[in-house]
Amino acid sequence: MRTDIRIAGFGGQGVITCGIVLAKAASLYDHIYAVQTQSYGPEARGGASRTEVVISDEEIDYPKVESPEIFVAMSHEALVKYIGDIQEKSTLIIDPNLVDISAIEDIINTKELIVYTAPVTETAEKTIGKKIVANIVMLGSFVKVTEIISVESAKKAILESVPPKTKDMNIAAFEEGMKIVKKLN
Amino acid sequence: MRTDIRIAGFGGQGVITCGIVLAKAASLYDHIYAVQTQSYGPEARGGASRTEVVISDEEIDYPKVESPEIFVAMSHEALVKYIGDIQEKSTLIIDPNLVDISAIEDIINTKELIVYTAPVTETAEKTIGKKIVANIVMLGSFVKVTEIISVESAKKAILESVPPKTKDMNIAAFEEGMKIVKKLN
Repeated sequence: MRTDIRIAGFGGQGVITCGIVLAKAASLYDHIYAVQTQSYGPEARGGASRTEVVISDEEIDYPKVESPEIFVAMSHEALVKYIGDIQEKSTLIIDPNLVDISAIEDIINTKELIVYTAPVTETAEKTIGKKIVANIVMLGSFVKVTEIISVESAKKAILESVPPKTKDMNIAAFEEGMKIVKKLN
Repeated sequence: MRTDIRIAGFGGQGVITCGIVLAKAASLYDHIYAVQTQSYGPEARGGASRTEVVISDEEIDYPKVESPEIFVAMSHEALVKYIGDIQEKSTLIIDPNLVDISAIEDIINTKELIVYTAPVTETAEKTIGKKIVANIVMLGSFVKVTEIISVESAKKAILESVPPKTKDMNIAAFEEGMKIVKKLN
């Protein structure tokens, strides 16, 4: 089975690192295939940032994500821009402090999306004390909701990807992310 | 026009960062489209690392690189593994201290490859004093040879991507990379 994932926000939120850690966890530790992609074009010049990850138990022939089944929106601009692409009955995870969900209520109902909120930026700032770990908080929320990679693999991939001095902080961020995510509908 | 690029080596060489900086430089500063991909599968568990970058003046519909026109090999294993994929008359850039080119002489002749050597690891260690900037030294060699992105854009993308304290070192690494690359055939 193949799962298509998109994570989008703005530059500086660590969106791309979040995708890299996710793909690493899937393939290096959960022994499945993963392809992780960044596209850069005119929209990136406005400060938008996005990554796509495909996870599969078979080799991935077509790495492009056109219609994700899981969409993580870390900015309102990204939410509005990409919500039209996502599949029916998909999972949407948002940071409610950065996104106004009321703008897309119609689409949520029509497509029967399952929406989760995770205030990752606030949690990174106030609970962990470092705004830059918001992406790893989001990874925790993502793993809790989707169960597409194991907690153990996610932690190993985090430890492999972050600077040594920040390991404890990043693991704490991940664990906090698992706690704060809530189903909205 | 579209150019397909593959950069491959082993984990810890910064291969993926090299791809990210290249894609950023192309799109953010040279105003063209770029897609940068990492694939993870069983081979990644052996410590291999690889990234692909597609650069184009049109939107990129098919992000997969099957037959690169530019191949950067930073390990002998990567060279041998991927040399069969590259197009005729392609450009091959290798670190001669990590790669034994004699193993693929037949393919070089048959495919009429243009081969460049850039001792990036040695240069990073001895000239710059930090082995970890080998990837940015390689980016310098890459830009010098291919001219696919401008020097100015490459430098801006480096400055945006590396930790603030390492900016001068990375720019020095890039400039050194431009100097050390040599045409082999």
